Amino acid sequence: MPEQPAAPRQLKLGAFMRPVSLHTGAWRYPGGWPDANFNFDHLKTMIRTLERGKFDAFFMADHLAVLNMPVAALKRSHTVTSFEPFTLLSALAGATERIGLVATASTTFDAPYHIARRFASLDHISGGRAGWNIVTTSNPDAALNFGLEEHVEHGERYRRAREFFDVVTGLWDSFADDAFVRDVESGVFVDPERMHVLGHKGEFLSVRGPLNIARPPQGWPVIVQAGASEPGRQLAAETAEVIFGAAPTIEDGRLFYADIKARMARIGRHPDSLKILPGAFVVVGDSLDEAEAIRARLDAGVHYDSGIASLSIALGHDASSFDPDGPLPEIPETNASKTGRDRVVALAKRENLTVRQLAQRLGGFSGLEMVGTARSIADTMEAWLVSEASDGFNIMFPYLPGGLDAFVDKVVPELQRRGLFRTGYQGTTLRDHLGLARPANRFFPD
Amino acid sequence: MPEQPAAPRQLKLGAFMRPVSLHTGAWRYPGGWPDANFNFDHLKTMIRTLERGKFDAFFMADHLAVLNMPVAALKRSHTVTSFEPFTLLSALAGATERIGLVATASTTFDAPYHIARRFASLDHISGGRAGWNIVTTSNPDAALNFGLEEHVEHGERYRRAREFFDVVTGLWDSFADDAFVRDVESGVFVDPERMHVLGHKGEFLSVRGPLNIARPPQGWPVIVQAGASEPGRQLAAETAEVIFGAAPTIEDGRLFYADIKARMARIGRHPDSLKILPGAFVVVGDSLDEAEAIRARLDAGVHYDSGIASLSIALGHDASSFDPDGPLPEIPETNASKTGRDRVVALAKRENLTVRQLAQRLGGFSGLEMVGTARSIADTMEAWLVSEASDGFNIMFPYLPGGLDAFVDKVVPELQRRGLFRTGYQGTTLRDHLGLARPANRFFPD
Repeated sequence: MPEQPAAPRQLKLGAFMRPVSLHTGAWRYPGGWPDANFNFDHLKTMIRTLERGKFDAFFMADHLAVLNMPVAALKRSHTVTSFEPFTLLSALAGATERIGLVATASTTFDAPYHIARRFASLDHISGGRAGWNIVTTSNPDAALNFGLEEHVEHGERYRRAREFFDVVTGLWDSFADDAFVRDVESGVFVDPERMHVLGHKGEFLSVRGPLNIARPPQGWPVIVQAGASEPGRQLAAETAEVIFGAAPTIEDGRLFYADIKARMARIGRHPDSLKILPGAFVVVGDSLDEAEAIRARLDAGVHYDSGIASLSIALGHDASSFDPDGPLPEIPETNASKTGRDRVVALAKRENLTVRQLAQRLGGFSGLEMVGTARSIADTMEAWLVSEASDGFNIMFPYLPGGLDAFVDKVVPELQRRGLFRTGYQGTTLRDHLGLARPANRFFPD
Repeated sequence: MPEQPAAPRQLKLGAFMRPVSLHTGAWRYPGGWPDANFNFDHLKTMIRTLERGKFDAFFMADHLAVLNMPVAALKRSHTVTSFEPFTLLSALAGATERIGLVATASTTFDAPYHIARRFASLDHISGGRAGWNIVTTSNPDAALNFGLEEHVEHGERYRRAREFFDVVTGLWDSFADDAFVRDVESGVFVDPERMHVLGHKGEFLSVRGPLNIARPPQGWPVIVQAGASEPGRQLAAETAEVIFGAAPTIEDGRLFYADIKARMARIGRHPDSLKILPGAFVVVGDSLDEAEAIRARLDAGVHYDSGIASLSIALGHDASSFDPDGPLPEIPETNASKTGRDRVVALAKRENLTVRQLAQRLGGFSGLEMVGTARSIADTMEAWLVSEASDGFNIMFPYLPGGLDAFVDKVVPELQRRGLFRTGYQGTTLRDHLGLARPANRFFPD
């Protein structure tokens, strides 16, 4: 891919969302929108707030199944059902002007002709704002909805994903940008010499082409990935332009960042042609106390049954017999990840949490958190950016719409004051926002 | 399905469109929009005009391939590429309030979980305005884009379509309408007792379910079909709520109408629970002469190369050596359909057409046409409705936007004056417009 022009380094900000929030207790938060899963007006309000905040992209989480969970947890979960992301993003394209629109599509359970067509169409409809989050879908519940009794093996999934990527991008290149002549006088609408028939036959896929849609405004919609495994990292280093990372600490972030950019260097890709955006759960208050009180209130919305299941998994030990209102007892060594368990034990000590509070914390959201004031959150983000732990973040809001409003009204202006974030959109496409070049057409490079 | 309430019989009107028109010469018509295939603003303008005209539904034509045609025809065709209908309709949902949105999805080249999800989501986003045009996709060019060297046999395609329909509607019924409790106080979001796991295992499909989306506002999006073959008619009589018909004459229309409604009676369906809407190409002028001049100008935009290919197919005889500016010569008997050939010969005689004019007529559009004034067109439509040849029409406009504007500004008011068409939308959903009942949930009938 072509190199990027040098520019002052600023944060890139995506919003990673479920309609009610990713926090499992959020639907019970005062002033929240428990019905947002199927309330399109609420979604329009949210994305317009994000656009007011000059976010790079809106990214809706997705699953291809009602996840298999115990009934006690299922009945309390607002994450079971919501809009299908592709229809949602197409509808939101008409309600917005600039913000990028990233949808997830699986390379295991869909056909490349469909995927190429829909993302190209979204890119045309939105004027160049589409992004494709490539997932290989590791969820066995999803497999059962697509006629597969056993899930496809990991390595095979990634080989198929790579081939799928090559086919989809090849289909996007079916027409040269100047193929559509539309000369009313001579009666020539399209120049067949500027149309390429893909004729792909590979290990997993056979696709003739051409795609029945003009090349997308962005050339290709932006390629997004989240894989953290060895084959996932390699696929991302070869093909991704955005990685939605999951580093829980700044140290983890630096290691991941260095690893990916080194893999890119080895295959000759410019490091700026891929942006690494870890997910960050951000709770902002006017004081640290207020922010912590918001988080505590949010966690209190998590039912104990759900929380204790999460705590048991994190500890590798059944926690259901612990005294909910006592401190975390000593527990024997287990097979659970020692790092993960030590982190939970340290968290309980550091914040002096009861078993109930700890369970609700883990059941609500676990991962990278920033809980504080606009200044302290901006400090943290700046530290990540400056130390090359990330190129920005995918922000997760604690509850909606209030948690989103607080971020846009408080954190964004603080980042702008420091010169760390745009004060207005410079271009019109998602590639413009992210500073990514438009890829050349492999069949019509001129 | 439940019976319909009695109501004065009025026409139902859909718009069957390609962005530039279905007429192959339309992109060259003065004042047309040759770039409409990828111009979302043009599509918004068109659908808003349809909504002003109180149309029941907007229906975008679709193919899953660049159709294989000779290069001489391909280079002149504006129908090769356009928006993917599903992304387009989702985006248009946000730009409209009442009009129905019908998208095509193939039961041969897609998965029922995806289809169920997307149509349910479009129905939620649009407030109950989605319709699913079920096609089995008979096009061999499409098969090659989905890894199939040989096309699936006709009877098998229809058996799969029927099973696919059962699975999709079963997935739509995954949740009772009252499943989502969202009781903030008790912390119960969804009642698992009001969720059904489909667990389907059939001849072609294995789908566990449940669908991860609430039941659509319409219960099920409206089921549309176009099959005219024996298994196509039977599938439609069993499952369809709208048939997009192709009767070329009022006599053909009556026979088809009687056949479908008789099939419905045999299986106990109420005849009003399915609306038959033949496609009609409507050219309106202030006088018959003006209308014919518009059509002649439109046909003149069809390149002779494309037209002569269509004429040769219709005659079953190579017409390329005929004198373009002479009358149609006598031709020997061939294997071509005698009815079809006789119709072409009669047309040439009746309108005194040269070979060129005849070729351009057939190359532009062939099928049911209504060319005349608002009054003569309304007379024709009334005759079809009164004689039970149809329940309305799927209107095809000769060129856009002018041909659409003329229909809405001239024909619609004439139909309204006669009490044959609504003057305003009575309800909010596509089912409301069409007078179709909301289907009961098969798993939660109460």
